[in-house]
Amino acid sequence: MIEKLISNIQKKESPIVVGLDPTLKFVPKSLQEEAFAQYGETLEGAAEAIWQFNKKIVDAVYNLIPAVKPQIAMYEQFGIPGLVVYKRTVDYCKEKGLVVIGDIKRGDIGSTSEAYAIGHLGKVQVGSKSYYGFDEDFATINPYMGADSVKPFIKVCKEEKKGLFILVKTSNPSSGDFQDQLVGETPLYELVGKKVTEWGLDHMGTNYSYVGAVVGATYPEMGKVLRDIMPKSFILVPGYGAQGGKGADLVHFFDKDGLGAIVNSSRGIIAAYQQEKYATFGAENFADASRQAVLDMREDIQNALR
Amino acid sequence: MIEKLISNIQKKESPIVVGLDPTLKFVPKSLQEEAFAQYGETLEGAAEAIWQFNKKIVDAVYNLIPAVKPQIAMYEQFGIPGLVVYKRTVDYCKEKGLVVIGDIKRGDIGSTSEAYAIGHLGKVQVGSKSYYGFDEDFATINPYMGADSVKPFIKVCKEEKKGLFILVKTSNPSSGDFQDQLVGETPLYELVGKKVTEWGLDHMGTNYSYVGAVVGATYPEMGKVLRDIMPKSFILVPGYGAQGGKGADLVHFFDKDGLGAIVNSSRGIIAAYQQEKYATFGAENFADASRQAVLDMREDIQNALR
Repeated sequence: MIEKLISNIQKKESPIVVGLDPTLKFVPKSLQEEAFAQYGETLEGAAEAIWQFNKKIVDAVYNLIPAVKPQIAMYEQFGIPGLVVYKRTVDYCKEKGLVVIGDIKRGDIGSTSEAYAIGHLGKVQVGSKSYYGFDEDFATINPYMGADSVKPFIKVCKEEKKGLFILVKTSNPSSGDFQDQLVGETPLYELVGKKVTEWGLDHMGTNYSYVGAVVGATYPEMGKVLRDIMPKSFILVPGYGAQGGKGADLVHFFDKDGLGAIVNSSRGIIAAYQQEKYATFGAENFADASRQAVLDMREDIQNALR
Repeated sequence: MIEKLISNIQKKESPIVVGLDPTLKFVPKSLQEEAFAQYGETLEGAAEAIWQFNKKIVDAVYNLIPAVKPQIAMYEQFGIPGLVVYKRTVDYCKEKGLVVIGDIKRGDIGSTSEAYAIGHLGKVQVGSKSYYGFDEDFATINPYMGADSVKPFIKVCKEEKKGLFILVKTSNPSSGDFQDQLVGETPLYELVGKKVTEWGLDHMGTNYSYVGAVVGATYPEMGKVLRDIMPKSFILVPGYGAQGGKGADLVHFFDKDGLGAIVNSSRGIIAAYQQEKYATFGAENFADASRQAVLDMREDIQNALR
């Protein structure tokens, strides 16, 4: 999957991930009304509105981007009907040739991490048969519980040729509360970065590891350091756009070959029509606004990388 | 909910949580065969087997225990049908008067944590209506991303009078990889414990906060220190039984009033019939074996507390 991600990035000249993190306030009223007319103002109605929203955005942008990153929380908030649409979104994006990064941020004791790994990346055994649960291509992982909480994910990834992005330095304002604490003279996020490098050696592709890292666009100086600490890891960079990161901040997340990083934007793309800049599209053309926002983001990043 | 947890503990004289963490290898063959006869060897069949297993165990032990802790990963591994049974288990346990601690270990940037909080503890707005998603009473939370990843959970908990258990020092062997790192002379888990105390002041019950902590039974010395650092927090103590913790190790997790901690056992209870000690029950009487294991665990802990 790391090879497919790289080939998709090269084919589309675009190290961009679109975060499919819908909430109802992003979904145009007309789409909501259609869904509610069919299912009522219910969890099923909300899920249907979100599915139609996702599908139109994916149809509008899939040929410009290598990958999507659905944030499972946004679906989980609608209970089971929401998770049904998460799964439908994963499947649809894969049909469209996109690499799907499940933003699930799971992690637990060994036997429990194994269950998460099986459910999201692998197959579960039922009697004489086996089944994929959610079947994303990559998953994000929280490392707070240490090596034995991460290794079951790597084991399943090796079997399935799938990958991980492990939280190292996250994009949110208080990510420093614990991640920046100095252990001796080394911030904790660097220690985590070193572990990512070590774990990554266990599951290498041709040039890059299947084990990547999450480092927020909002901390470019730290990104520069972490790029060196994790030379074989792809960095998934959230925080571009709505969270404040700009293309020029991102140069040091990439390698000299223009690879090694993939930049995520969620609200900035999927709710582009709600920004002044794209307001002329109108709510009914929200997907076209998303396409334009992807084109603009791609140009911003390509310019920064030149 | 913290008050209900305390009153349940006192009524049942039992600071015990049963971890409903089923895998198919714990479910007796006959139950599996019944479910497969109805649904085939499918995800639905596996989920049905697990539901019947859970229900029989809950029926056998609910009057001995204050709370259950279903581990969502064990359900998530079976995809959507598994999560349907997670929800059914949550609802059934609440009908039986049990406090339900959703062991979900979520945590993300603010807007995403808010979605998780809404989905698991609060209500989501759909047009003019609102709905509970999973509706557990407590949830476990991973603090690696810092204060702004935790506060949306506290906000929803205040609205709903629900609570949290935040990971501080986990029970698994490599929990020390990051949690034990020394920041100055203070291990990271103590810094997290101090934050739990601070966050907990924002959502106090009568004697205890609604914001508790997870500290593994497998690290009793650290439990002693953390008990002092978090005087108003209930400690959820995993790692008893199968992971190696014993009653005598647990004294210092409790306050002088015998409250302040609640000890979880999962495999040790739900798969008791597979242990030599309870083998005479036989697979068909697995729920009776679980009941006996709860009685034995309660006695072990009561003896330690005397």
